[in-house]
Amino acid sequence: MDIIVLKRSATTADMEAVTKKIESMGLTTNISKGTERTIVGVIGDTSKILEEDAASVRAMACVEDVMSIVKPYKLASRDFQKDNTVIDVRGIKIGGKKVQVIAGPCAVESHKVLMGIADKVKEHGASFIRGGAYKPRTSPYSFQGLGEEGMKILAEARNRTGMPVVTELMDPRDLEKMMEYADIIQIGARNMQNFRLLLEVGMIDKPVLIKRGLCATIEEWLMAAEYVMSRGNHNVMLCERGIRTFERATRNTLDLSAVPVLKKLTHLPVIVDPSHAVGKRDLVAPMARAAVAAGADGIMIEVHTCPEEALSDGEQSLLPDQFAAMMAEIRIIAQAVGREA
Amino acid sequence: MDIIVLKRSATTADMEAVTKKIESMGLTTNISKGTERTIVGVIGDTSKILEEDAASVRAMACVEDVMSIVKPYKLASRDFQKDNTVIDVRGIKIGGKKVQVIAGPCAVESHKVLMGIADKVKEHGASFIRGGAYKPRTSPYSFQGLGEEGMKILAEARNRTGMPVVTELMDPRDLEKMMEYADIIQIGARNMQNFRLLLEVGMIDKPVLIKRGLCATIEEWLMAAEYVMSRGNHNVMLCERGIRTFERATRNTLDLSAVPVLKKLTHLPVIVDPSHAVGKRDLVAPMARAAVAAGADGIMIEVHTCPEEALSDGEQSLLPDQFAAMMAEIRIIAQAVGREA
Amino acid sequence: MDIIVLKRSATTADMEAVTKKIESMGLTTNISKGTERTIVGVIGDTSKILEEDAASVRAMACVEDVMSIVKPYKLASRDFQKDNTVIDVRGIKIGGKKVQVIAGPCAVESHKVLMGIADKVKEHGASFIRGGAYKPRTSPYSFQGLGEEGMKILAEARNRTGMPVVTELMDPRDLEKMMEYADIIQIGARNMQNFRLLLEVGMIDKPVLIKRGLCATIEEWLMAAEYVMSRGNHNVMLCERGIRTFERATRNTLDLSAVPVLKKLTHLPVIVDPSHAVGKRDLVAPMARAAVAAGADGIMIEVHTCPEEALSDGEQSLLPDQFAAMMAEIRIIAQAVGREA
Amino acid sequence: MDIIVLKRSATTADMEAVTKKIESMGLTTNISKGTERTIVGVIGDTSKILEEDAASVRAMACVEDVMSIVKPYKLASRDFQKDNTVIDVRGIKIGGKKVQVIAGPCAVESHKVLMGIADKVKEHGASFIRGGAYKPRTSPYSFQGLGEEGMKILAEARNRTGMPVVTELMDPRDLEKMMEYADIIQIGARNMQNFRLLLEVGMIDKPVLIKRGLCATIEEWLMAAEYVMSRGNHNVMLCERGIRTFERATRNTLDLSAVPVLKKLTHLPVIVDPSHAVGKRDLVAPMARAAVAAGADGIMIEVHTCPEEALSDGEQSLLPDQFAAMMAEIRIIAQAVGREA
Repeated sequence: MDIIVLKRSATTADMEAVTKKIESMGLTTNISKGTERTIVGVIGDTSKILEEDAASVRAMACVEDVMSIVKPYKLASRDFQKDNTVIDVRGIKIGGKKVQVIAGPCAVESHKVLMGIADKVKEHGASFIRGGAYKPRTSPYSFQGLGEEGMKILAEARNRTGMPVVTELMDPRDLEKMMEYADIIQIGARNMQNFRLLLEVGMIDKPVLIKRGLCATIEEWLMAAEYVMSRGNHNVMLCERGIRTFERATRNTLDLSAVPVLKKLTHLPVIVDPSHAVGKRDLVAPMARAAVAAGADGIMIEVHTCPEEALSDGEQSLLPDQFAAMMAEIRIIAQAVGREA
Repeated sequence: MDIIVLKRSATTADMEAVTKKIESMGLTTNISKGTERTIVGVIGDTSKILEEDAASVRAMACVEDVMSIVKPYKLASRDFQKDNTVIDVRGIKIGGKKVQVIAGPCAVESHKVLMGIADKVKEHGASFIRGGAYKPRTSPYSFQGLGEEGMKILAEARNRTGMPVVTELMDPRDLEKMMEYADIIQIGARNMQNFRLLLEVGMIDKPVLIKRGLCATIEEWLMAAEYVMSRGNHNVMLCERGIRTFERATRNTLDLSAVPVLKKLTHLPVIVDPSHAVGKRDLVAPMARAAVAAGADGIMIEVHTCPEEALSDGEQSLLPDQFAAMMAEIRIIAQAVGREA
Repeated sequence: MDIIVLKRSATTADMEAVTKKIESMGLTTNISKGTERTIVGVIGDTSKILEEDAASVRAMACVEDVMSIVKPYKLASRDFQKDNTVIDVRGIKIGGKKVQVIAGPCAVESHKVLMGIADKVKEHGASFIRGGAYKPRTSPYSFQGLGEEGMKILAEARNRTGMPVVTELMDPRDLEKMMEYADIIQIGARNMQNFRLLLEVGMIDKPVLIKRGLCATIEEWLMAAEYVMSRGNHNVMLCERGIRTFERATRNTLDLSAVPVLKKLTHLPVIVDPSHAVGKRDLVAPMARAAVAAGADGIMIEVHTCPEEALSDGEQSLLPDQFAAMMAEIRIIAQAVGREA
Repeated sequence: MDIIVLKRSATTADMEAVTKKIESMGLTTNISKGTERTIVGVIGDTSKILEEDAASVRAMACVEDVMSIVKPYKLASRDFQKDNTVIDVRGIKIGGKKVQVIAGPCAVESHKVLMGIADKVKEHGASFIRGGAYKPRTSPYSFQGLGEEGMKILAEARNRTGMPVVTELMDPRDLEKMMEYADIIQIGARNMQNFRLLLEVGMIDKPVLIKRGLCATIEEWLMAAEYVMSRGNHNVMLCERGIRTFERATRNTLDLSAVPVLKKLTHLPVIVDPSHAVGKRDLVAPMARAAVAAGADGIMIEVHTCPEEALSDGEQSLLPDQFAAMMAEIRIIAQAVGREA
């Protein structure tokens, strides 16, 4: 809250009441009387204004509007930290020169299938293995994931291939177990504003990957990162996975302009998941290329050795050969933008 | 999954593979060869097809598209239960002839403030008191609610006024405590797809009010109800609170057509919360009237005795006098549509 | 443009350059130096700032953001004219106490069908007959309307029933002919920002009904009204017909909160078309009731004597009996909100 | 319309009525009785079903839903023409191996400014000069373009540099004049469903560039192309320029997945305009790179020698040096995807 616009009907007494309220927060004001409206500028460190104090100004009968200029996030802001955050996961760096590739099936289905996929994506250049042990499913009647068993299989895939594990946390009560098996804790799109879950992963020492909510603004997404960081965990990365629009040709609309926007606003690494955004296999590679060209620090790709038998999202999974072809393209694009992959 | 559209390039062998897959699910097929496309109709109780089986068909290389005709929700469907669900909360019926009014502050701030508000809304005709003890806030630096202390104050307001309590659950770990104090457990918009939380409230015996997610389709919202019902708790009501669009004149866009749409699709009661949708005090009463005219079973209204001191959302809270005026209007509209309020 | 936010990196020289630019527009500035940002308030009649001058400030390298407080529309604003505009069409008043009902088929199909519909809607209380002689159709292969022949039939229906005619203009080259037959010229949703068409109807002396664009903000919609009014024609009314969202249960999402928002911002009459918004017959009456409860000055309803033979939008047309039932409900709701219908 | 879903309540007589109606269109049916619903498959060339006939089926009381499988566009479809359309404009090919760059100011402001910009963009590798002579502006009080004078200046820039001219048509009455000066006629986003304008440019022999409407689906956009093509002009290209979403960090959300989606659905060339989509200078180059990586056949970029003096959209215009740097990046990306620029 930096600018307060008064209603046309506001009196001098109103103006004084607003000024008094601002001064009670330890700040001063600058009054600008226009021909149509009076504007009150707030002087001082407005980033410290509590949301409830701003709301109480907004609720005053003489106030028409309140505008914020200083961003509501602090720790996540590029103003707070100028240099890029580089997150080291078992020696692999996210946010550095190399564009990292996270690959694997949507859900962990069995030991055998996961090992097969892990071997293949490792062979073709992936750095991280992904897979859901807990799956957020629209229907209560659908496969909900293998749970702890799934996490054990993931950990085994890491032991076998050396690739660190990315997996999703849905419930704070599962965090303790997950700390044993996972290397990066994913917060899914549907939980981006599950504030209790965010606070919980703010208190651990493992990196957190926050997927963008289905209709979250970039600012809200950065506030989700701020939630985690406010509790002490600064190893946060953001993952664009498409937003909901009226378009029906793709499952969601991949918002690639979020990549350069985030690069300006924050120092945190930015990952792009084209698989969930487009929802169809043959659209994944072009969007992966575009993500790298736009400046992403990593991409997350669904790969399955037998999509027709996948228990979740087989439709959008690349076959190993398709993944290999995509990796070859990605490497060239990465070089073209001064990175490597 | 009831209709499978094959690609133009699909061969007879492809068609047979699809048919075989369908038969392996215990269903039969009906092939319809058009000049452009072959369509496979699935015959049998398709409501029992698992999501993962449908996905595996979708993932077949010869399949262009898969369409569902039977709704994915069952218990929540009007087909499953023809008569309206009427929920009895301490003797007050939701979903019956009377349009119920739930009123109170956004957050419980103090014993004194809540009692003042409770007395006023009771006096003017509210049937339920609302107030948040746990508040989902965009910023980690904002007031997060009084927690258990807030719930105790709410229970006291109930004891004082006789109005049952509606309050929001954010974390499964708070449910046990909340069972002592609350009468209706609210699932907030941001947790509409927090599936673990939904399963949790599916196992209790108190009514659950599910707010529509910020960008949830009506079908997804009904699936959230299905999650709760699938665990045995059939006392579910739905609360429209505005969806996210490009429009900036209101905080959200209140989707009132959801009311008659839901009345067709489901037997569950439908509540409308105009306060959160519009975000501005002077738009609340017209939208409350419209909600009742559209057929809502209840409305949820924010009321505060001193909005300028509210710790949350004071801008959209009605003053007690405004609430009284709105109640008078609502009563006339309710009569006009054959209800009472 | 009333507030200019400078970048953190802005120098004193930058600030002076901005000030100089503002002064060159005949205005003065008020500088407010915060700890994080410098804000330049613009003093004087900012409503006279040309869009291109504002853009040139916005394009300065030292400027982070430019905010407008004064609304960009003038003639359409409630600030410009405090009293409601009441439009008199052949003695029938739109914007007064009576909620007017405009009814008829989507498209004029034949003389016989239109006369049948006109007689019925007149009998049940409609005040205006609607029907498209020129139809905006998504496909070039669809029925495009009867053209001038359709307008002649409409004029005949008016002569027969006394109801003035509302019909859509799609091309400036048709305006001259249309002036002979129509009483209210409708600008369709897809042409809301067809600025040349708006200027054209700004120069005539017949009332203009502007439908809201499929994804138009309320401000853009008021600017469309401003386009018409800027050329001299102040007899403008606005018609909400649903906006595009992700929801698929209805064709569009009827934004009824636009009604009270418009009532605050503008003096122009507000009409609601629930038929196009919901797209299904059985949702029309509840939304018509809600529209009147929200404060609409009129509603526009599709009615057809034989929807199954309609050449356009039969799915959402009410049968005459359904229309009669809806009219009875509307009358009661109108009374409940101090109007009549 | 290929599949008709009947209501649960549909009788045998209803089924027969539907069948009879389909047969009256010269088609046959295939009935598939499920346990919950009866589905009628339509056999024959359903692409020839008129929209009004489909609507009349939809309007039958026994019909729950009607689904289309065959695309509503024909000439624009990849099924109709397998090979890419390559458009030759004064010897420069759009849709071939080379990624073409269209550059220039938003609006033509003066002879001197345009020549300066044209020389610069030519020097740095642009193939086409763009500039608006008629400008669609939200406000009637803004600069509306130089009109015919602007077109003359554009033609002079072509004569000077050899770059063909792209400019926007807003009114069918301007087409005759524009035929003298322009090489590619642009249909702006706000006129994408100005069907009369589309039919008009369908009858000329110059290429047409259709910008995607602000909230147009890809299918509607292809139907706009179909409108033009249906009148005989097959030299149509499509230009993605961002769609409207709730996100406020960018002016619009550039939907880059539209590029590979269009490449599958249509044979027409696809251009991307990142400047209008992002609305801010420093986001243009990353999105231009991403567009080429995603497979665009061309990009359209706003360039201005003095953005602070631009009469329109200076904020998003690249300076010549920034344009030169972007061109260097684009060339590398183009090579990386097997193209050239």
